Amino acid sequence: MLRHQQLLVDLWPEDGELLERVQPLWTVTLEAAEASGATILSECSHQFEPSGFTGLALLSQSHLSVHTWVEQRLLLLDVQSCGSMRPQVIVDRLAAFLHPCSVEQRAFERGAGEQRSRGAGEQERRWNRGGRCSIQ
Amino acid sequence: MLRHQQLLVDLWPEDGELLERVQPLWTVTLEAAEASGATILSECSHQFEPSGFTGLALLSQSHLSVHTWVEQRLLLLDVQSCGSMRPQVIVDRLAAFLHPCSVEQRAFERGAGEQRSRGAGEQERRWNRGGRCSIQ
Repeated sequence: MLRHQQLLVDLWPEDGELLERVQPLWTVTLEAAEASGATILSECSHQFEPSGFTGLALLSQSHLSVHTWVEQRLLLLDVQSCGSMRPQVIVDRLAAFLHPCSVEQRAFERGAGEQRSRGAGEQERRWNRGGRCSIQ
Repeated sequence: MLRHQQLLVDLWPEDGELLERVQPLWTVTLEAAEASGATILSECSHQFEPSGFTGLALLSQSHLSVHTWVEQRLLLLDVQSCGSMRPQVIVDRLAAFLHPCSVEQRAFERGAGEQRSRGAGEQERRWNRGGRCSIQ
């Protein structure tokens, strides 16, 4: 069965000005996506005023997103993928560009439906409608 | 400080054909986003052959994504948000449309930087460059 992977990565760059150079940041991200083995089908982005940037890329393998909050000196990267792409390449290239002083990276399997325990700070709801579904 | 919320929702509809009606599905999702208080700045979508759909919406409040895999009878919904929108509205409206027989929903805070324990099936990497960053 096709496996769906998800990376949630929070990066705090040492130099917050890098988050204001949004075109280089987005270019690095898209080039990293291609280097990871992804195929970019379309992309859109938005520059907020006075600061902050969002970029979304629709991939053959799912999607990626980048959000920046300059005042919080924070970048949030999501990569959802299936197939053979290597999403860690995107994380590593963004980290090489941003020189983060701190990174929090979480990885999940999606659509697996297995019972999971709950991590601190995480809320989970799960419900089933008694026995009518054969998928899981 | 602005809080960033993330929902990861895996839905298995009882009737897989609903996942093939992609235009109603995407319309329901976008209308739900507006009902949740989100402002949609742009959106893009892709219909895969022979089946499968991806929709991405760039929001003032961050983004949402929908991916379907008809052969796995699976829909993956992500909502990343900040501010006052109510992302649960989107989950509830999609659930009302899809009548899922099973749902797995996980909620996270992003950019908080707190120490977290690790849930089953979740991998976490975290690193800091000793003491040079004052953000956290």
